[in-house]
Parts: sequence; structure tokens; C-alpha cells
Amino acid sequence: MTYLQDINSPADLKKLDIEQLKQVCKDLREFIIEQLSHNPGHFASSLGTVELTVALHYLYNTPYDKLVWDVGHQAYGHKILTGRRDLFHTNRKLGGLSGFTNPKESEYDTFVAGHASTSISAALGMAVAASLNGEENRRVVAIIGDGAMTGGMAYEGLNNVCSQPNNLLIILNNNDMSIDSNVGGIQDYLVKMTTSAKYNKMRSKVYQSFKSKNLISEEKKNIVLRFNNSVKSLITQQQNLFEGFNIRYFGPVDGHDLPGLIRVLRNIMDMKGPKLLHIKTVKGKGFKPAEKAATIWHAPGLFDKETGERIVKKRIDQPQLYQDVFGHTLVELAEKDRKIVGITPAMPTGCSMTYMMQKFPDRAFDVGIAEAHAVTFSAGLAKEGFIPFCNIYSSFMQRAYDQVIHDVALQKLKVIMCLDRAGLVGEDGPTHHGVFDLAYLRPIPNLVISAPYNEHDLRNLMYTAAYGNEGPFVIRYPRGQGEKVDWRNQPQLIPIGKGKRLKSGSDMALLSIGTIGNSAAKAIARAEEMGISVAHYDMLFLKPIDEELLHEVAKNFKHIITLENGVIKGGMGSAVVEFLADNGYIDNRVFRIGIEDQFVTHGTIAELQRITGIDAESILRKIKEVYELTKAEAREVQMQ
Amino acid sequence: MTYLQDINSPADLKKLDIEQLKQVCKDLREFIIEQLSHNPGHFASSLGTVELTVALHYLYNTPYDKLVWDVGHQAYGHKILTGRRDLFHTNRKLGGLSGFTNPKESEYDTFVAGHASTSISAALGMAVAASLNGEENRRVVAIIGDGAMTGGMAYEGLNNVCSQPNNLLIILNNNDMSIDSNVGGIQDYLVKMTTSAKYNKMRSKVYQSFKSKNLISEEKKNIVLRFNNSVKSLITQQQNLFEGFNIRYFGPVDGHDLPGLIRVLRNIMDMKGPKLLHIKTVKGKGFKPAEKAATIWHAPGLFDKETGERIVKKRIDQPQLYQDVFGHTLVELAEKDRKIVGITPAMPTGCSMTYMMQKFPDRAFDVGIAEAHAVTFSAGLAKEGFIPFCNIYSSFMQRAYDQVIHDVALQKLKVIMCLDRAGLVGEDGPTHHGVFDLAYLRPIPNLVISAPYNEHDLRNLMYTAAYGNEGPFVIRYPRGQGEKVDWRNQPQLIPIGKGKRLKSGSDMALLSIGTIGNSAAKAIARAEEMGISVAHYDMLFLKPIDEELLHEVAKNFKHIITLENGVIKGGMGSAVVEFLADNGYIDNRVFRIGIEDQFVTHGTIAELQRITGIDAESILRKIKEVYELTKAEAREVQMQ
Repeated sequence: MTYLQDINSPADLKKLDIEQLKQVCKDLREFIIEQLSHNPGHFASSLGTVELTVALHYLYNTPYDKLVWDVGHQAYGHKILTGRRDLFHTNRKLGGLSGFTNPKESEYDTFVAGHASTSISAALGMAVAASLNGEENRRVVAIIGDGAMTGGMAYEGLNNVCSQPNNLLIILNNNDMSIDSNVGGIQDYLVKMTTSAKYNKMRSKVYQSFKSKNLISEEKKNIVLRFNNSVKSLITQQQNLFEGFNIRYFGPVDGHDLPGLIRVLRNIMDMKGPKLLHIKTVKGKGFKPAEKAATIWHAPGLFDKETGERIVKKRIDQPQLYQDVFGHTLVELAEKDRKIVGITPAMPTGCSMTYMMQKFPDRAFDVGIAEAHAVTFSAGLAKEGFIPFCNIYSSFMQRAYDQVIHDVALQKLKVIMCLDRAGLVGEDGPTHHGVFDLAYLRPIPNLVISAPYNEHDLRNLMYTAAYGNEGPFVIRYPRGQGEKVDWRNQPQLIPIGKGKRLKSGSDMALLSIGTIGNSAAKAIARAEEMGISVAHYDMLFLKPIDEELLHEVAKNFKHIITLENGVIKGGMGSAVVEFLADNGYIDNRVFRIGIEDQFVTHGTIAELQRITGIDAESILRKIKEVYELTKAEAREVQMQ
Repeated sequence: MTYLQDINSPADLKKLDIEQLKQVCKDLREFIIEQLSHNPGHFASSLGTVELTVALHYLYNTPYDKLVWDVGHQAYGHKILTGRRDLFHTNRKLGGLSGFTNPKESEYDTFVAGHASTSISAALGMAVAASLNGEENRRVVAIIGDGAMTGGMAYEGLNNVCSQPNNLLIILNNNDMSIDSNVGGIQDYLVKMTTSAKYNKMRSKVYQSFKSKNLISEEKKNIVLRFNNSVKSLITQQQNLFEGFNIRYFGPVDGHDLPGLIRVLRNIMDMKGPKLLHIKTVKGKGFKPAEKAATIWHAPGLFDKETGERIVKKRIDQPQLYQDVFGHTLVELAEKDRKIVGITPAMPTGCSMTYMMQKFPDRAFDVGIAEAHAVTFSAGLAKEGFIPFCNIYSSFMQRAYDQVIHDVALQKLKVIMCLDRAGLVGEDGPTHHGVFDLAYLRPIPNLVISAPYNEHDLRNLMYTAAYGNEGPFVIRYPRGQGEKVDWRNQPQLIPIGKGKRLKSGSDMALLSIGTIGNSAAKAIARAEEMGISVAHYDMLFLKPIDEELLHEVAKNFKHIITLENGVIKGGMGSAVVEFLADNGYIDNRVFRIGIEDQFVTHGTIAELQRITGIDAESILRKIKEVYELTKAEAREVQMQ
């Protein structure tokens, strides 16, 4: 490192000259590579925004000026330059820096951004606020990738940018990627726009003349710019989407040319009115393996920074990931039935729909960051007799809540919604925990809601959703490794709404749903060693809930523990206490284990499960507590 | 009526010649005006689509071909022409036709469409299904207004239209309106596109040449069309947004010129690949008062079809609408504090934010049909110290669920979310009932969730949200008339999370939340006459729930009834049984009144409250049941 160690705030950047700033970019890139090689995180995005980050903090008066990063994991450079360099080794660790921007962490972070496509709306709010406050010199910048630009919310923002007075600058960071390759019309459009040689040559000439007239009036500048844009649309035969929104368009500009970037930004940063700067970057820039395979290097895990090899833990003779079980099972089903189709919004690698995309490219659809569309598009396919498996991470399904109600459940369409990353997800933290799904889906009529206990159940549920049910079906399961080495059972129909007793017992009953039940099983085994006998029931279905099972439990056990990897308000435990109330059971005592009413921080899944009290240790503790209570109650009865 | 009475299905249309079809349009318009004058409904939208509807059913092979109407209330003509003419007098009535499209009602209705912006996604699903099935001759058409085009979901759909093989036709029905005047960049863009005289003249010439070459090859046609589009962008200096999405664009075409419309549709209906036809219509076409004031005539209520006068019931000496109380109170607050701002997605008239828009146009923002943006834009304003009142209908808030969690609650931003149209809404039916909000909001940390009992509470809650709380605040209230003639109290701070006892009693307690508590009060008064003594508590807050009050109730009453105008799974009753379980109360019996687990049909609010068992009569019945139970239990105790 040449300069980076001396940069403790953007003020230190402002003292440097352009050559020194170039060196800062180099330092920053090296630092990120070094850090990420032994502390895994989002890698390629932040390498792509190094020059942009340096240019912005060099030119802008942050934190008075507001930078709003769309999806904060492109903002590692920003974090490092704004006083968090020496803490960066704690990135995504419990108690350490968040992997996304977070105002609680730094005044330079203006907004929490874990989900995509929010930046234009949030930044527009800030820009309009500045305008209402008469703070004419406060600048607001939204930095959004072309991946996030496929989200409907970004468009809603764009559509409103010209509606009220503001000086917002939107920087479109075009790297042809979201996490997976980007898709859709917008993407084709941006590619055409930035790859027409003829256009780029012409544009360059016009831009030169623009530069040389640095001191001409604002009005003349505008004429030149307008000419530039007209020329572009003539030559490329492409139209400028953004000017359709009455937003002034500049670009495309090479996002790795630091002097060029600084020059352009300086020219436009104080122009009045909303404007968009289109820059072209390479995801993973400066680290060859990442440049070549940006999807893998989006979040590569550990790697050797010298050889560029990823340190992948061997998984032979170990259980597969639930993701792989989903992916392979989908292919198995699709092989036998041409009506099976797969849909995912920008997460084919993460959810392993890639297998289906390779095998049946015509029947697997990556629709981009567009959860609402994904669900309703699936509904349209279902309406015509196809069997769509729509795979969306649990926390992203929040983006399609109305579509689940209005387009799927109300019409009872057979859309199979697979909610990956359910429960606590670990290092991605509060924006990504899939903990609300059970509670927000349960009130929706017509849904079947399920969660497998293990891989066999996952496969059975997928099969049953396709062939044992007429209507919408939700399957939620967690990130990560499964329970069984031998996961390839023969999928079979299972009765809908039926749970099962995994183990009998006499002191109390524990009802669990989902894979967290395996932690309960461990706790129960240890309780058994201590002489506490716990019956264990796997509910499997939240809805319809197994009322026969609940009657059995209510009649046989005064003390009932419920367990779920989700919020405690409104979830499975809530369904159980509702059932008891509705059926006039008044003697039972219910102890609900789940995520208490607060957002959960980031850390490893094990750490977070411990903190929130849903790990085996905490479950055992609860079992012991309840057991003490039963004994105390028994003594009381004896004494009466 | 000349022909309409003989048209019982689209087959009957196909027998007519163009002059007869024109007469059908005339008939259809008269029929709609006549029917709507004495059976209120959505009026102006369907008048605007008369010619389009006739042209589509004349040319297309429905129901084999699929018409997907975006927001079904533009589809009255479609309903009347597809066998539902003689049932049309039952429109929006209990047991009668739905005010929106509904596949359960007719095979000609392809999709439920009560919320806007869904048609492209749903139709794309159907078009891709046709393509996968090799049904090359099945045509799929999405008909979407420019209002719905501001919704992010429409854009997500557009962005995916070119991603997979399909022959979708999107018809953009451009009438410059959603319900209120349309807003945003898209709108400006469409206006410019359709109003340039120079362009229209040129376009017309080119189109003539296109027409005369009806028999030329597909390829040559494309050349002409491309030329047409280039000319357009040259002359108007506007760019074609849709071609940015790789969707072939045609138009704009006069949507009231039936022969012209038929000609264009015939030319493009069998073209391969996705395409968009832009038509220009007048909302309310054919009824002068509606043409002049389309917002009022969107859903005008009863009117005199001869004079064009709306039959507005006098409201002197009657309580105001809750909407007006909200609107006036917002202005009162805004007058005293320049930090107060108002945001609504396309519902300023419906929620009465119009008052603020008139008084403080700079501080009231109608962002178009864009709920997600509305919430996050509000969050951006809140981040900078403004106090945004974001008013969204309860059922539309489902569209911004993730934004409430991710952009507001997680950051604890002081966004005041006013959920209008909460509870059963009546004639708009299942897509519009605001019954899920309590259940889907309750699991979200950091939210204050409230519901006023009457107008004074609404004003106090608004005031308290602004000045008595630091963080997000939800206020949900219903459509319609309030309880008090004298609603103008002096707003004051009220303690957050505190309910109140409205009436003491001895036999049981009834806990209600929201204005439905007034029905409970009526039922309780009648129970009192029968000698049943019921204590009545108004919770006011769902979250934080008043635990002190609940302890008091749990200790003093074995029998507790809960009442809410919302779904029973996960709502206020659920919070109460959770509380009792968590606090070890085992003697209490709770009887929860709310909307059972099903979608509720359309009808008057009174009818629907009766059917769902939440009206005063049903509450009284429940009170009597519980009373019988208490007596039976008392007898049992005596006998022991």
C-alpha cells in the first residue's frame, strides 16, 4: 500500500493529485483482494466500483453530500475510504462491519441497502428534501447497477425523478451482471448502446469538443449534449430510454478511467435538474479470475489471492446443499413431465436452477431482479396448465407479497413457490434473513405452506406440490448443507397437512417445523440422557396445520414447546395457540421458541441461532426450564 | 339498442359489417351509461375502451385467444359482449357479477385483475405457455392503461417480454389518466409522442403507404415500420421507450376510430414476436360530463344520464368521511409545520390528499401507481428530517411490503403510513378488501400499528405519529363515514401502546380494535338490555399492544372476545392468545371474531360484514353464546 494507509476520511483523498489517486485505486483493489481472500464476502462488485468510489469521494463533499449505493455490497471501497479500513477485517462478522451500507455504522452510509433497486427512490427523497430545505448546494447521488435496474422499483423511481424539483444524479454502473448474468430488454439495450463502435467514435469526437469548451455557457453545453444524444440515436438506431423519462443522459463513460471519470463528474455534478451518468465497468476488475467468471466471483468464499484458486471445501461423503437437492430434483421432475417449468428472479446459481437451465433452457426462466413479475409470470404459466416452480429467496419474496395474494392465491393457481434462504441466513444479516415468511404467508387463504425436515421431505414436498395438490404450494427451506448423505429417495406423494411424530415422550411435547427440527432432535436426545422425556413432532405443514396431531398433543401433554426458524409473532407457535384457544383447550401451557420481535444482526448462522435462542443448546435450556416447571406443578398438586 | 340485444357472444359480432359494428359501439356505450346511472360502478374507463373491445372480439378468436385486461374495470364492454349483458344489472352486487374480470365468472375472463400493472406479466406467462405448447395460432393480448404503466411490475414485464419466444401483443391504452391525473416521466413522454402535429402528419403518410402495401412481404413491412419509427424519433426529438425493450412499436392510433383500429389490429395480430400497439382514447368517451372530468367520473356513484348530474347525497349534519378527516387534518398539521409532507401513489382524490395538494403543492406528492416507490421515497424524505404521511390503501400496501420492512422498519425511519380502505371495502370485492394488514404488519419489528375508534382518535393518532414518536407509525382506518358530526377536536398526544376501557362489565370482556368497535358497542348495549354485562376495551394499538390492559382483562375475566375487521389468522386476536400463552394464563377462554380464512366476495359493506360475522348482530350472537357458556360453566362448578 502506498497511500491507502493514510486515508482515514475523504478529506485525505482531496489532498492527492491524479497520479496519487490512481495509486489509491491500485491500493484499494489490492486491499480488497487481500482482505476478501481470507474473510469471504461479496467480491467482484466492489472491485468494479473502485475508480468510481475514489472519484466520488474525491469530488463530493461527503457526508454532507449524499451517496446512496444500491445494494451496499458494491460499497466496500466506500467503507474503506470512509474511516473503516482498519475495521474491514471484521466485515460480515458478528459485531463487525455490515456487508452492506448501514447508517448506524457511519455517517457516510446514507441508507440500508441489502435488497436491490431501492436507491433511486431513497435518493430522490433526499434530493427533494434538499430542494424543499433550500439546500441548493447539497448533492445527492444514487449509484445503481444494471442488474438492479431490472427491478420495477427502479423504474418507479425513474418515472418520478422529473416530477419534482431536484438535482439528483443517478450513476448507472453497467457491468452486464446482477449476480448472475443480467437478462431482459434493458440489458440488450445497454449492451447495444455501449458497443456500437461507430457511435462510440462519434461520441468521443463530440465529447472532445464538449471538453474543449469547458468554459462555455450552460446553455451551449446543453446544445452540445443534446446533439450528442441525437447523434447517438441516429447512429446506433437505439433510442435513449432515460431521456424518455425526461432525465438528462450522459455517457457511456469508461468507469475504470479515473481521470475521465473525474472530468465528467466535475462537469455535471452541479448541473441543475435530474441527470444520469452511464458508466461501463468490469465486475471483478483487476483480479483476472473474477473478470472471467463474475458469477462465481460474486461471493467466492475463501480463495488464494496469488493463484486465484478458490478454496472449496471438499464435500464428498457429506450431505449436499439443500440448494443442490432442489436443483437436481427439479431436473428429475422436468425430465418426466414437459409441463414442469422453472422461474427465478436473478438467482439461478444461488438456488441451483442452473441445472435446469442447462438441461432445459426453454423451460427455465431467469427473469432478472423482478420478484413481482416472477410470481405473476408463473401464475400466467399455471393458468395455461404448466407447473411452475418459482424459486425466490424468502426475504426477496417480500417483494412479491401482493402478487402471491392477488395473482396466485385468490385465483388458486398451481404455482409452486420455493422459498430458498428461509430462516436466519448468517453473514448477509438483517436485510436477508428469511424469517418473516411463515408469519406473512399464513394469513393468505388457499395456500399450502410447508417446510421440509430434511432432503427426503424436500423432494417429497416438491413432488406432492406438483402431483398431489391443485393450487398454490409454498416450500420454505434454508441455505446450506442438508442432513443426509443419501438424499436421493424416490419422491412420493405425502398427505397434505399431515405432520408426524418423530419420537414419543411423556414429560412434554415439542412441535417443530422445518430443518431446525434437527436441532430440536439433538436437544431432545440430550434431555433424554438427563432423564427428561420429550415427544417430538414434525409439523411439516404450517397450513393446513395438522389438527388431528394437535388434538392428540393437546390431550396428552399439558406442556408444549413450539419451535420455528422464523419470527415468533404470527408464525407456527401462534397457529398452535390459536388452535388451542379455538378448540377450548384451557389447561395447556405453550412455550414458543422463535425469533423475538427484533431485527437480527449478521454473523455465522450458528452464532445467530445461539443469540436468538433457537440453537440446540437454547432448546435444551428451554426443555429443562419447562421440565422444572412440570415438577413444581406436580409438587403443588401433591400438596393440595 | 339496435344490435346489442342480439349479441350473446363474440360469434354474433363476427357476422356484422363495419357500419353495424359502429352501431354496436353506440349501443354498448348507451347501455353502459344507462346501467351505471342507476347501479354505480367504474364508469369512465369502460366508455374509453368501447371501440377497442368491439374490435378485439370481432377480430380475435376468443376465448381460445386470450385477452388479459389490466385492472378489470375497463372491461365492462368485454363482459357485456361475452354473454353477461343480461346479468350486468347485478354488477358489483352481492351474488352478481364482479366489477373486475374473473375466470370463475366466464371463460372469456383470463385473469383476476383488481390491482394494476399485472397484465403484461400474466399475459407473457400465457404467451410463453402457448409457445411451449406449439400453439402457434393462439394469440395473447394484454390491454394496459398508461396509469398502470407507471407501476414497476409493468416494467418488469416489459423487460422480460423479449427474453423468451412469444407473440404477445400489448395494447397501451393511453388516456392520460390512472384514476387521478397520471404523473411522471412516462406520462410526459406519451403526451409528447401523441401530440406532435408534425410527427402525426408524417406518420399518417407513412402509414398510408404501409396500408397500400398490404400484400407486401413481412420483411418489407418491417422496413416501412422501422422507417416510420425512425422518422418519429427524428421529428419529435423523443425516443421510443418501448423499442428500448426490443418490443416492436406501432402507433399511436386513434382508439375511437373503429375501422382504423380494426385495420391496424388485423395487420399486426399475426406478426411473430412481441409487439406493442399504442392507442389514444378519451376516458369517459361519449358522455360529455365524464370526458370533461374523468377523475370524478372514474366511479361517479348514481347520476342522471339525461342531465349528467351526479346524485350526491347531502351530508350536512352527518359525520364526515374518514378520508376527509384525514385530508383536513393533514392540512392543519402542514400549516403549522413545514416538515410535514404528503405522499400517495395515484390515490389523492380517494384518500383526500387533494386538500394538501391544493394548499401545499410543493409538499404533496402523487407518485403514480408506484406503491413501492412511494414508501421508499417517503423513507428518503424521513431520513432528511421531513415527516412524511404516506397514504396507501390497505390492499395496495401489499405491493410495498418489502419496502416497509427493509427501507422503513429496519432503519426505524419516521414514516407515517396511513392505510386507507382498511377492512372490508364492499363492492370492489376480494382484490380490494384491506383485511390482511394487521396480520402482515404485526410481525415487523419497530412498527407502531394503530387503528382509530373514531375521528378524534384518527386525528390524535396522526398528531401523535408526527410528534409523539420517533419511528415508523401505521394508522389503518376504513373507507366511509365516520361516527361523529363534530369531528374537529384539538389533536393531542396520546400514549403509545395504550388502549382504554370504554365500558365496564362483569360477565365477559370484549377487546376490539378500530372502528368496528362501534359495532361492538351497539351489540354490547343490546346485550346489556338482555342482562348480559360486557366490559368493552378499545385496544387502539395492535403494536405495541397494551400489556397492562391485557393483564387486567386476563385477571378479571375468564371469557374474552376479540374483534377485528381483518383476517383472524395472525391479527389482534392472535396477539391476545399469544400474550396469554406467553404470560402463563391458562384459565382464560378466548373467542376470536374476524375474517375467517377465505377470500371475501363483493357486496355492500353491511352485507359482507354480516356474511363474515363481524356485524353488530353477529357480535351480539357471539356474546350470547359465550354468556350461555359462562352460565353452563357456573352450573358445573356449583354441581362439583
